[in-house]
Formats: sequence, structure tokens, C-alpha cells
Amino acid sequence: MEMSELLSIARGDAPADLVLTNARIVNVYSGEIENADIAIAGGVIVGIGGGYRAKETIDLGGAFVAPGLIDAHVHIESSLCTPPQFARAVVPRGVTTVVTDPHEIANVAGAAGVEYMIASSRNLPLDVIIMAPSCVPATNMATSGASLSALELSKLRDQHPAVHGLAEVMNYPGVINADPEVLAKISAFKDRPIDGHAPGVRGNALNAYIAAGIGSDHECVTVEEAREKLSRGLYILIREASNAHNLHTLLPLVNEKTNRRICFCTDDRQPRDLLGDGSVDHMVREAIKFGIAPVDAFRLATLNTAEWFGLTDRGAIAPGKRADLMVFDDLNAPSAKLVVSQGRIVARDGALTGNVAQNKAPRLAAAVSSTIDWDRIDLRIPARTNRVKVIGSIEGQLITNSLERNLPSMNGELCADTSQDVLKMVVIERHHRSGRVGRGFIYGFALKRGAIAGTVAHDHHNLVIIGADDESMRTAARATDGAGLSVADGSKVLATLPLPVAGLMSDRPIEEVRDVYAALITAAKSLGAMMADPFMAMSFMALEVIPSLKLTDMGLVDVEQFRIVDL
Amino acid sequence: MEMSELLSIARGDAPADLVLTNARIVNVYSGEIENADIAIAGGVIVGIGGGYRAKETIDLGGAFVAPGLIDAHVHIESSLCTPPQFARAVVPRGVTTVVTDPHEIANVAGAAGVEYMIASSRNLPLDVIIMAPSCVPATNMATSGASLSALELSKLRDQHPAVHGLAEVMNYPGVINADPEVLAKISAFKDRPIDGHAPGVRGNALNAYIAAGIGSDHECVTVEEAREKLSRGLYILIREASNAHNLHTLLPLVNEKTNRRICFCTDDRQPRDLLGDGSVDHMVREAIKFGIAPVDAFRLATLNTAEWFGLTDRGAIAPGKRADLMVFDDLNAPSAKLVVSQGRIVARDGALTGNVAQNKAPRLAAAVSSTIDWDRIDLRIPARTNRVKVIGSIEGQLITNSLERNLPSMNGELCADTSQDVLKMVVIERHHRSGRVGRGFIYGFALKRGAIAGTVAHDHHNLVIIGADDESMRTAARATDGAGLSVADGSKVLATLPLPVAGLMSDRPIEEVRDVYAALITAAKSLGAMMADPFMAMSFMALEVIPSLKLTDMGLVDVEQFRIVDL
Repeated sequence: MEMSELLSIARGDAPADLVLTNARIVNVYSGEIENADIAIAGGVIVGIGGGYRAKETIDLGGAFVAPGLIDAHVHIESSLCTPPQFARAVVPRGVTTVVTDPHEIANVAGAAGVEYMIASSRNLPLDVIIMAPSCVPATNMATSGASLSALELSKLRDQHPAVHGLAEVMNYPGVINADPEVLAKISAFKDRPIDGHAPGVRGNALNAYIAAGIGSDHECVTVEEAREKLSRGLYILIREASNAHNLHTLLPLVNEKTNRRICFCTDDRQPRDLLGDGSVDHMVREAIKFGIAPVDAFRLATLNTAEWFGLTDRGAIAPGKRADLMVFDDLNAPSAKLVVSQGRIVARDGALTGNVAQNKAPRLAAAVSSTIDWDRIDLRIPARTNRVKVIGSIEGQLITNSLERNLPSMNGELCADTSQDVLKMVVIERHHRSGRVGRGFIYGFALKRGAIAGTVAHDHHNLVIIGADDESMRTAARATDGAGLSVADGSKVLATLPLPVAGLMSDRPIEEVRDVYAALITAAKSLGAMMADPFMAMSFMALEVIPSLKLTDMGLVDVEQFRIVDL
Repeated sequence: MEMSELLSIARGDAPADLVLTNARIVNVYSGEIENADIAIAGGVIVGIGGGYRAKETIDLGGAFVAPGLIDAHVHIESSLCTPPQFARAVVPRGVTTVVTDPHEIANVAGAAGVEYMIASSRNLPLDVIIMAPSCVPATNMATSGASLSALELSKLRDQHPAVHGLAEVMNYPGVINADPEVLAKISAFKDRPIDGHAPGVRGNALNAYIAAGIGSDHECVTVEEAREKLSRGLYILIREASNAHNLHTLLPLVNEKTNRRICFCTDDRQPRDLLGDGSVDHMVREAIKFGIAPVDAFRLATLNTAEWFGLTDRGAIAPGKRADLMVFDDLNAPSAKLVVSQGRIVARDGALTGNVAQNKAPRLAAAVSSTIDWDRIDLRIPARTNRVKVIGSIEGQLITNSLERNLPSMNGELCADTSQDVLKMVVIERHHRSGRVGRGFIYGFALKRGAIAGTVAHDHHNLVIIGADDESMRTAARATDGAGLSVADGSKVLATLPLPVAGLMSDRPIEEVRDVYAALITAAKSLGAMMADPFMAMSFMALEVIPSLKLTDMGLVDVEQFRIVDL
């Protein structure tokens, strides 16, 4: 719409596209609830107040209207769904913008993966703002599908307007110790938002991390840590993920002095949680329940996030802002009954009003199934000794213990020992047909028989299998077809969830993904698994940057020593 | 400084340039006072905390340290001094950044005037951020020295990194009614800060003004007006100028909900006020005295302003920010005793520690003296009728009344009549040697004899003379030499203040300018003037955008009718 036309509507001289009357506006600028009409034209808010005519008028009858919510940091891949399906889950909740780090798909498919996410996010009722993944690959102790250099990140920045800043710089030792390639990446995003990821970094190391140009952190686990980081200038993105629950721990940080520097994010949320509790809308409700003033709670999911990312066109209900709105009835438990995105009603009563766009996204040829040459895969572990290192998993945590156990052997091979809850774990390189296999043992998964397998394995996303016997492991592995999750018992496949998009995301509706995922867990539990979610647990057992003992396709990694070690 | 070197200092591995120990930091992020050391290197803060070594250490012994203050909107020309002299006044107060609109000099000298301000602001202990003047000239009912089109503003934007955004868009009717040239100027500064100026604009007109892309306002005169503008998304810049005192009226707007959207600015301040009360430091003290928490008061002059202008490198004491600091003893009446700019101590105990840079600035050939062809100037007003329109000045206000009076005549000419307090007023075009003279009469200046003259006359800055007789007026006019202020009585010059820089600014030290200005007022009072500052009053009597009757070089302007009218 021409500006002159828009202004004639704002003045009240011409009719708006849509007027919402009798609204109670959550005004994040004044901190108050304001009774007024909202006039919308050309996808933006043109006026607040009264006396506007429109082609369409909706009487909200005193319902509350908040700015569309913004998720400050999310890996859409963790929903196991594509952006359109992710949008189907979050938009009806009132989330109209997400800032996403397509870090998982970038580790599989590099720049093409990022471009896939950009392409498949077009024309959605959700605005997907891309942060360029900064740490691909995480280390050289695993084989990822691709790498993104500072030069490649600069290209993404220049070629794609959707690329807004630099995503969480997880290599904090690299920042603090001035690794040239890490600093080159930061320099490439100078004057743009650069997200941080610095678990436990405090004191002078934190000063250095921030002085380098990092502006946020979402890894705080105590109020004290968060308070220090906030005082040093980092925006604190409070996270409530499926696997990391920091919200209630950190809510005491929020007060009238600190409020403006804090945002909400979900980081990683599974379909069950997105479709159940919700997204950042859930965090807003929990914050209000905790005792934070409703307008302040909304600020954490709107204005503050817009300010941190420099998204000056949204985050508030005001003239000139995107008409992204969340309409709800109860200020003490806001739950969207109507959602507006760029002036269009896109969701009502918990569901989208239309179908999501099915974008033509580039096919990720190298990253889909059949990248494993099964004939070359050897799962056997020669019994050089019976005393071996064992990864000690801990339910609900990403860190592991480094254990040692005596294991039985048969035909010169070491075997899993379910009586000790020690299973075999194998990581098969799936990106380059190298045939590379890392082999080891793991404690804590409790399978009595059978195996589970999956291609979601942070951050390299190779194929990981944990099982009681080689036949089950081989069955489970092949059942993934190199891109998916599976459960097998002997030669029998019990359940599978194909993830044809880069081995990370399903192309099916998110409700179906939720249900199949639940069936996978049920199947794993039928084999003895005790954890609430053995697949999520498994996805972190190959992550070689979190202590203390992990397994990649290159072998066992002693994370404290930061090197590959013998079994 | 290389980033790697800076980070080694931040880590504590190498010595800093300067460490301030035992500081009580005004932490604008946390809202708290924090006891810590501040390590500085390469002009920026590298660390907060303890354990830093440095080449130089200063023990602050528990003194408070705030971020260097930022004046959100100031016309440096109103100090009647050049930027270096302006810096001498404000930097010792703790002001380390000003956002300036070189609107006055632009009306005289166009882009060259803006470039003069940029050049003469280099290498100062004050960072001068330039907003491109948006309304040059104000109207076509006066002859200004230059004009700045959208195209010329775009060139300034592209050629000068110091040009940061678009200065106060005073032509609010042009914005609201979608004047194409005004919208072109706004469009040229899309995605940059655009300051507003919308006195009394409310309701749907305000919606339109904001929808066009305006982001701030400094013209609020009531809390209600400010609250509406803030609620609609404008940053409220509270102004405390020499001629407009809004601070105490608007302080009730500031509370824990609104605080983040409010900044402090001085707009126009004279040498006496700058050297007396001070700059925005004065506003901080007054706010604290009013009852605002000290850290909040500082936020209005630091973080908030940095946020509005997107100055992410300053506004707080944190790693990576410019080492711009104000050190003081009393948190309840902060008065700078030490000022640091980019890591260097630049002022101590109210005075700069060194000389200010004398920059080679371009000479403004066309705008300096001798642009008036005195032989062509005719001050006579033929007596066609004795009943004439008279500008009715009101002390302390920019608006005037539109009066009518019967005046005496002599030799076929209308004369001033001091018995009615009606003086002659003349505006001589001084930019283009046109010989154009506007003539009229004015009530309220109270001169019993003699005349005052000056080339500071908003916004066109032609030569204005108000006097009791033509001889005094001609003497006063010539005493300005086309660039300055003067007082004359008959053939005798009583006082002059030469303003060789564009007829707006002296090239002398600011203390001298203050004293000479005081002498001018004393001289004017010796002739009968009753106003506190007749020169400031006179400078607005030719401003043809403020109702109701004004005089320009083109003649009498009926501002309500927005046209030139007969006497």
C-alpha cells in the first residue's frame, strides 16, 4: 500500500481494511490496558482510538488484544516438523514471529539447509527470522554433513534478507580466547544482533565474551548467573524447552528494574509440548501465575524481544507496526482465541483458519536417506580387554558420567550386558558414505532387549543406535533408512518415524508426528526403557561438546580432554 | 586495537590502559548501584569486576560512576558558539554524546552548513551525532539561505557517516497530509531514527504522523499529551531549554512502567544556562530532586537515548561499550568531578583537562558578513493609512497576537509610537544580496529609544531589527555587519556580539559569549526594554510557522491564513 493511501486511512479520511472495536489493548509502551479500537490497513496498524470506518469490523466485545508473540530463540527442527507444520502449532497460540537458528539442518546440509528453511518458511502466517548458524560443525571430533565458514555465513547474510543476525555463538572458549575464525564470524555480523550461548561463563571470561560483541544468552540456570549476565549487558532469554526448564528458576529475576532486558524463548520443543502447553504463550501464562504483572509478562514475549533484535516494525500495538495480534479473554491466563498476522485473521479457537502454504523448497539431495552403505557397516567390537569405558547417561541431563565396566565377550567380541544395564552404542556416519562407525557402550537406557535408532543426534546428526544385540541394532538402523527414528526387536521393526527432511524433520502433520513419536516411546518402553524419552536422551549421547564421555562416528570422546580416546 | 588484544585484556591476561578501582557503578541494566572496578582499553570498557591490572590505576575511593550522558536533541547553534566551545561547556558536566540537529546553520548555508558542523565537531571529547535537518526551509514565505531536498538529504546520509538519522520533522501537516516531498525525506531515512516535532498533535492525526515513520517527540507540554504520544509508540524526549521549560511539567510522566520510553534533551540552551545550571546533567539532578530513583534518572540520559537512536555502543557501563563515564560523589545531586571520553580523562572539576581541537572547517563564504547591500536598503513605510496591523509579542511565548493600532506619520511615512509601545520591525534578507526588506510594527518590546538587531531569526535567519527610529535601526543593523547581534541608540553603537559563523555562532570562548550577551541585554534595557531576553524574543518574531502574526523579509505573515498580508 502506498504511504499516502495508508495515511489517509490513519487520518480517518478513507476506510481501513479491518477495524477491531471494543478492544482492551495490552499497551507495552505505557504498561497499561487501554480501551480503544484498532484500525488496520495494508497489513499494518494505522490507528488506535475511535472513529475509524472499515471494510470489515469485528466487535471484540471487550476482549484483550496483545501484540503477536515473538519466540526469541527456537530451533524449528526440534519440533521434528517442517516450518509450515511448526506454524500450525504455534500460530494458533498467538505466536506470529519466531527467531530461529537453523543450526540442526545446517549441520546436515550446510547453506542449502539454511536456504531450505528460508524457502519453506515463505508465505506462512508466521514470520520466520533466520539467525545464521555460527558453530557448524561444533568440533572436528565428529563428521557433520557440512560446515559454514565465516565467508559462507557472509554470503548467507548478503544473499538472503531473511538472515538477520548471527545465531548462538556456542563456541564460547573460541570467543573468549580470540579464535580467528570465530572472531571473523562475529565481525561478519557487526552491527547486527549476535546471540550468545555461554553456560556458566562468569567473571572476566564473561567480560571477554561480551566485549567480543555477543548480546544475549539463553543458558542461565540460576538467578545469580542471569543477574550477572544481565548486569554486564546481555539480554537474558529465559528458556522453557522440552528438555531444559529454566522458566520457574529464572522468573525471580524479573522485576520492574530488570524487566526490559529479559525475553522468552523455547529453544527446543517437541510436538507434544507445542500442541499441549504451547510455545511462549505458555511462558506468559506461567509468568502471570507466578505473579508478574500481565503487561510485563507480555513485554517479555513482545517489545523486549523486538528491541533486542532491532525489529522496529513489531512488538507493540501502535501505528506503523505490523498488525500481528493475539486476542484473548482472560488477562490472568491469556489463551489466544483469535490471531491476526499482518492484518489477516489466521487462527481462531486454537486452529489456523486456512491451510498453510506448501512452499517449493529445494530438495536436500545429499542429506536424505540412502546415504549409508549398509554392506560396509560393521557393528562388532573386538574384545582386546574386558574392562572398558562406558558412557554413564543420567536421565534428564545432557552431561554424562565416565564409567568403567567389565563386559562379557563372545567369539572375540565384546557384548552388551543388560544385567548391568550396559548396552552397545554405535554411531554411523550418514552424510558422506564414508562407512565410518564409532562403537562403544552406554549405561542407563535400561533396554532388556532390542534396539532404538535415530538420525537426530546433536550436532552432527549421524545415525545413533543403542541396543542389546547386533541384530536388533542392525534392524533398527536400517529401519530408519538413514533418516528417521525407529525401534526394533531382533529382526522385527516395532515402530518408525521417517524424517525425510535431512533426517531431522517429518513431512507429515504435526499431530501425526506427535502420535507416532509417542508410539516410538511406547515401543521402546516395551523393550524395558525406563526414561521418559529415550530418543531425546539418545540425541545428546553423541554430542561431543558436553562432558564427560560421548561417542561420535570417530569414536569415544573424552570431553574434558577434548580428544578421541580408546575404549 | 585488535579484537584479540582487547580480549586478552578482558580476560585479565594483559594489562588494561586504565583501571578505575573502588567505583560505585550506576548500572542502568540491573537498575542497581554496583561496587566494582572498571577496566578500559582501546577506548572501550573491557571488564567490570576485579583483578584487572593496568598501565594506569585510579582509585575512585567509592565515587559513583555513571555512563557518559547523552543529550537526545540539541541545536548547538543556540549556544551561539561553535561545537568546540559548546563541548567546553557540556563535557565537564558529564555529557559525552549529543544528538544534534544543525537546522539553523542549514537554513543559512545548506549542506555546506551541515558539513561545517560535522567538520568542526571532529576530535572533540564530545561525540556529535548529526541528524539531517528535515525542514529547510520551513516555508516559502521567507527567504532562507538554502534548501535541503530529499535528494540532498540522501546525499548527506550517504557521504557522511556522522549523519545518523532524520532530524525533527516539524512539518507535521506535511507528514499527516502525505506531502510527497516530506514523505520522500522520511523514506530516505527508512530504518534509521526519525525524530518528530508535533506540538499538540493528538488522536487520528497523531496516528498518521506515527504511521508515517516518526519515532519521537520533544514538544509535549502536558502529561496527558505526552502519555498519549508515548502510548502510541513515540519516545518522549523531555526538553528543558532556555526558552521552553517542560521538565517539571513532564516529570510526573516518568514511572516504572513508562521510564524506558523517555529521554532527556535540551533543544536550545544559551551560554548562561549551559555554564550555569548545565545541560542534561541538570535535568538528571532535577529529576532526582523530584523523587525519581537516581538510576532511573540516569537511564533517561543514557540507556534510553542510546536505545532510541540505536547507539548500541554506548549508554551503559558494560564490556564493549565506549568508555564514556561521569564520575561524581553525591548520588542525590550528581555533579561530575571527572569525565572520561573514549577512555581518556577529558574533564576534571568542571573544566576540560586539555584544549579543544580547532578543526579546519570549511569557510562558509556565502553565509558570513557583507551579504547585505546597504545602499539598497530602505526602511521607510509609506503612510497609506494610519490604521495598521501590529505584531503583538507576548513575553516568554513564541506565539503572537494579531493587533491593530493607529500610528502617527511624518513626511508621508508611518512612525513607531513608543507611547503605545509600538516599534518598527524590519527584516532584511541577508543571504542572496536581494535587497528584499519586510517592514512592519510590533508591540511589546518596550524600547523608549534606539534599536536592537540580530541575524539569529528562526528559521531563515535574516537580519531582524526592532527600533524606535530609523537612524537607530540603521546603526544597529550595520553594527551587526550582517552577522551578529547589536544594540544602538541614534548613531551610537552600544553593544555588539559578532557571530561570524553563518551569522549564528561566535568564534570566541563560550564564557566571553555569555558575558557579551549579558552586556547586550543590559544595553537593550538601558533603552527601556523590559523583557528578560529581548534578543531571544526577537529571534522568534520572524518565525512564520508559529501563529498568529509574524514578519519575514517577504512581508507580514498571517500564520492562520498561511499567507503574506498587507500591513
